Amino acid sequence: MDNRAHFLRLAHTERIVGLLRQGPVSRAELQARTGLSRATVSAIVAELRRDGVVAARPDPHERTGPGRPAELIGLADRNARTVGVAFYRDGLRVALGDALHQIVGVAERPFARSTGWAERGAVAVETLRELCVEYEVTLAGVDGVGVGVVGPVAPGRLAGRWRVAVDRLAEAVGAPVYVDNNVRLAALAETIWGAAAGHDSALYLHVGEGVGGGLVLGGRLYRGDSGAAGEFGHVTVDPDGPRCHCSRRGCLELYANVPAILSAAGRRGARARDIEAGYGLAEALADPAVDAALRRAAEHAGTVVAAALATVDVHHVVVGGLFAAAGEHVRRTFADTVRSRVLASVAERLRVVPAALGAPGGALGAVALVHHSSPLLTGYEPLRHSITERRTT
Amino acid sequence: MDNRAHFLRLAHTERIVGLLRQGPVSRAELQARTGLSRATVSAIVAELRRDGVVAARPDPHERTGPGRPAELIGLADRNARTVGVAFYRDGLRVALGDALHQIVGVAERPFARSTGWAERGAVAVETLRELCVEYEVTLAGVDGVGVGVVGPVAPGRLAGRWRVAVDRLAEAVGAPVYVDNNVRLAALAETIWGAAAGHDSALYLHVGEGVGGGLVLGGRLYRGDSGAAGEFGHVTVDPDGPRCHCSRRGCLELYANVPAILSAAGRRGARARDIEAGYGLAEALADPAVDAALRRAAEHAGTVVAAALATVDVHHVVVGGLFAAAGEHVRRTFADTVRSRVLASVAERLRVVPAALGAPGGALGAVALVHHSSPLLTGYEPLRHSITERRTT
Repeated sequence: MDNRAHFLRLAHTERIVGLLRQGPVSRAELQARTGLSRATVSAIVAELRRDGVVAARPDPHERTGPGRPAELIGLADRNARTVGVAFYRDGLRVALGDALHQIVGVAERPFARSTGWAERGAVAVETLRELCVEYEVTLAGVDGVGVGVVGPVAPGRLAGRWRVAVDRLAEAVGAPVYVDNNVRLAALAETIWGAAAGHDSALYLHVGEGVGGGLVLGGRLYRGDSGAAGEFGHVTVDPDGPRCHCSRRGCLELYANVPAILSAAGRRGARARDIEAGYGLAEALADPAVDAALRRAAEHAGTVVAAALATVDVHHVVVGGLFAAAGEHVRRTFADTVRSRVLASVAERLRVVPAALGAPGGALGAVALVHHSSPLLTGYEPLRHSITERRTT
Repeated sequence: MDNRAHFLRLAHTERIVGLLRQGPVSRAELQARTGLSRATVSAIVAELRRDGVVAARPDPHERTGPGRPAELIGLADRNARTVGVAFYRDGLRVALGDALHQIVGVAERPFARSTGWAERGAVAVETLRELCVEYEVTLAGVDGVGVGVVGPVAPGRLAGRWRVAVDRLAEAVGAPVYVDNNVRLAALAETIWGAAAGHDSALYLHVGEGVGGGLVLGGRLYRGDSGAAGEFGHVTVDPDGPRCHCSRRGCLELYANVPAILSAAGRRGARARDIEAGYGLAEALADPAVDAALRRAAEHAGTVVAAALATVDVHHVVVGGLFAAAGEHVRRTFADTVRSRVLASVAERLRVVPAALGAPGGALGAVALVHHSSPLLTGYEPLRHSITERRTT
């Protein structure tokens, strides 16, 4: 097969697999919805079956007449095989990736902030099992797990509490486990599938319950010497400001996280997570006090990102979390502040765009981390998690 | 040859050449002093002879018996062949590199600030010719020229005035010419031969007549999308501050360059370049007003570098120019400010060191750029200069 024919075939294959991802369909429907000939559909389906990617089973709603029995073509069992789990402060998300490095399904599970760490691991395992049942995969078929956690992650420095949760997950799955920071994984996902796809460099800023970030520089995901690259939340905005949990004063995170913005607007009671996810967001944004607090936060964040751009000089900035959800005018305040504080040569080519993948971004990035298939991960050594040895008592 | 074998061979080659730099030796001595086998030494010497790097001549002190005549192996004549030229505002520096990517000689030439751009190119050519005579090289033997200039350099964006000077140089040499920013070249040199040698990541800050910087991130020199990465001089320190030449207000460069520091101390007349080079520095520093202005500058610079570290998280910071020359207490003020504003995990491993190569750093980095031999330049595309076409009149 020459190159052009090869790519055409690949494109047709992707189209068919894309359709199958929405659920099993008949051959006739495959032909109708792809516009491909019966012969082409048959040849591609045959190849996909041979590779174990799709399976055919009798159509329960179709009477079998003479000739070939009516069949439904669907993605094969055990096709999904890579798992991404992103632990947040009050919940987690799980994503399943298939052998084609595509995301086939995601699930979300909230938990109380008071939930113990081992219990969080157990919730992850339970959610994963349910997702596996839904997509007809067995846990034994999983060949790798990517895990995102809150806070900086560096070699050998995974905080003890997270170790407990990740250990539980690793024991249940029995496959290699790789750990990284949630926001960095979301940045990776945005540059593979999302708002910065195809760009060599991008800065990602996430405003949620905290403020975090991620960097793709010169075609590579960048971690930094301590795993703390892109920790924009702890840049000093006001050296005489209030004390931050990091022990210093006036960090950006004190002014530009969702609870702080709601609290500045006198809405201390509103649930930050709901707002971040968009529930009650419209109502909150209609409050001029919230809007004003949000704009101030956008200005502070813009100042910090401008200093970051003086350092790394990238033209693509992706904003996630509240800044993505809150609408164009907040992003404009943010972008205008950035532009007013960077060199003209950088300002004129700057693009500020909202994240495209939303909340599941971290879990999707965790799948990508395991596949390690993106050029963005060239030279990036995923942090392999080893189950903590238990002392025998 | 696989990668590991390749690097081992490089290491052996460097060891042999390192020995030869001390003077010619016999093959037997090479084997004894390197601990390498006769076969390895022979293979490497043969390769170096083929490349014209070493030459063999009869050993005058050794009687020739039967078999191979006694020979001394030494570095070949006319070995220097790569040139680095760094243009500054009021002078230039030229460095000559040999075929082994080592610096063999440097020269310096001041010129008046009013010197025309073509004339600057002519001064560079003249200085280069003299250096070539001194080291017995012909201009025709030069196989590449690296050029450092003041200000940001990005593909296709070399300022017209610099083009005039670089054109003149390129015409005289007739070898490929590569251009980059002086400070970035100095950063490269410091991470190859200087204060950050052997480190995978480093941030370089230069305080001279302007404030510039360079970044080595994850083992690669980093330029940024516009060639403006590490432009720390234009981070806003005070949004209500005075107007900067970049058209914005309160940039770091307004507070932390040598003339500004002298002027803040009421020494407007002192020649900044002399001070930067160390002439009259001790006397100036003995002035409490200069010392106070310098400390304030160090605090401002520390604030900016702390924000940069929140972005790129590197543990090695190299300071050049005045901050290197001014002594330990200024660096301590700078380092303390940085440490007080970065995450504890970064602060505890932060090292702030003075540049080791001094003023010739830019020219040395320009040599490295041509060789393109450092792993730090992996994926770094040097900006090849094409001589500007002249209109026929």
